[in-house]
Amino acid sequence: VLVYSAGTALNVPLDVLDMPAAAIELMHAFSLVHDDLPAMDNDDLRRGRPTTHRAFDEATAILAADALQPLAFSVLASGGPASLEPAMRLALIELLAESCGSNGMTGGQAIDLQSEGRSLDNAELEHMYRLKTGKLLRASVLSAAYCVPGIAAGVRNGLEVFVDSLGLAFQIRDDILDIEGSTEQIGKHAGADIERDKATYPAMFGIEGARERLRELLDTGLEALSVLGPGAENLRQVAKFIVLRET
Amino acid sequence: VLVYSAGTALNVPLDVLDMPAAAIELMHAFSLVHDDLPAMDNDDLRRGRPTTHRAFDEATAILAADALQPLAFSVLASGGPASLEPAMRLALIELLAESCGSNGMTGGQAIDLQSEGRSLDNAELEHMYRLKTGKLLRASVLSAAYCVPGIAAGVRNGLEVFVDSLGLAFQIRDDILDIEGSTEQIGKHAGADIERDKATYPAMFGIEGARERLRELLDTGLEALSVLGPGAENLRQVAKFIVLRET
Repeated sequence: VLVYSAGTALNVPLDVLDMPAAAIELMHAFSLVHDDLPAMDNDDLRRGRPTTHRAFDEATAILAADALQPLAFSVLASGGPASLEPAMRLALIELLAESCGSNGMTGGQAIDLQSEGRSLDNAELEHMYRLKTGKLLRASVLSAAYCVPGIAAGVRNGLEVFVDSLGLAFQIRDDILDIEGSTEQIGKHAGADIERDKATYPAMFGIEGARERLRELLDTGLEALSVLGPGAENLRQVAKFIVLRET
Repeated sequence: VLVYSAGTALNVPLDVLDMPAAAIELMHAFSLVHDDLPAMDNDDLRRGRPTTHRAFDEATAILAADALQPLAFSVLASGGPASLEPAMRLALIELLAESCGSNGMTGGQAIDLQSEGRSLDNAELEHMYRLKTGKLLRASVLSAAYCVPGIAAGVRNGLEVFVDSLGLAFQIRDDILDIEGSTEQIGKHAGADIERDKATYPAMFGIEGARERLRELLDTGLEALSVLGPGAENLRQVAKFIVLRET
């Protein structure tokens, strides 16, 4: 959704956007399957259905997800219109690789697991959130920007600030839902963070403190989009949806 | 080693070969760490040392390996001489992605796990070996060929036949060593295949049948290299080393 919203704001053709959108979706699916594993978050439910290692077995879950990573890169290397510039494909590949490796999603998950039972300070918590969730969201929005040859620096900066705020807001909303939502509502086991004594925003600042930071981040994000004008309306809606979602 | 041996046979500069060599080594390391996991082969030893999940823990082993995949693609997207053609980098990325996904290494490992306790016929066993080990070896040799613009079709075909034979031979040698080698010698737990009732070449054709197939494959592989002339001496040595190795 983010790839398409950002892409339409930038007038990128939809058949070009399919390629990064598919790649990011594959990477996201990979991360969810591994994060749910017994050795990780040990979750039985995801989107209201049994997690992959529950529906099949652990080895299948590890391998199925492992195979999604190369598929994502393959999509970027050869998917979409054949006319796309090789250099543009390489930039998308580099962006995705950076967002998913040790300085991105996977590194963030490692910090998250190490933080159980320990106390992180505010800066450490936000760093973890930026890697774990923020980097892939960033790749979604910037992928659209990479599809625009010679994009203005101001527009690209606006998108960076927007998605940086959005990533943090998304994770804080997730933390709040883990406390306030029911298992049916959020489609995964509610209260899991507290049981595992995980570092979260509400645990650190209370529910009200978390809500306040959420509003602050939404304002910062929306303001940064002003440089894109009315075309960014979809992106604004996505931002509000993420911050106000109940599931 | 294979990337460099094939590359020197084709006169590819060494600083160009570093890039695919590093990427393939990263992918290989990723696969070893996941294959050793408790949910997979459950091995405690690798190259005579504790496996990653033994030295650290399971979550760390899963994540550390997960982070190696994007790093491998990142190396191909932006490593090595800046002058390399983007289209050539994309071809290397596509080759690596194909060799590691569900139609390659990871798919082969999935078939391998499903085969425990079942009987595979000869064609199924060779298919599994081709995916599990053969595809990454193929990527090593063909990566060097991809670094040669306008390589002759005959040379490329010769390399394909060579590496196809080599991949099978490597795996059969592995099977034989699992039976005949000691744990110290092979650096991992000897006899593990038999304990798990895995489909292997010696289990199917006996040790002598396996040895015979090995010699056959070596002959086919070496013959296919004749098209490369004396420059392929390194490749020939590597092939013999793999088929005759004791560790």
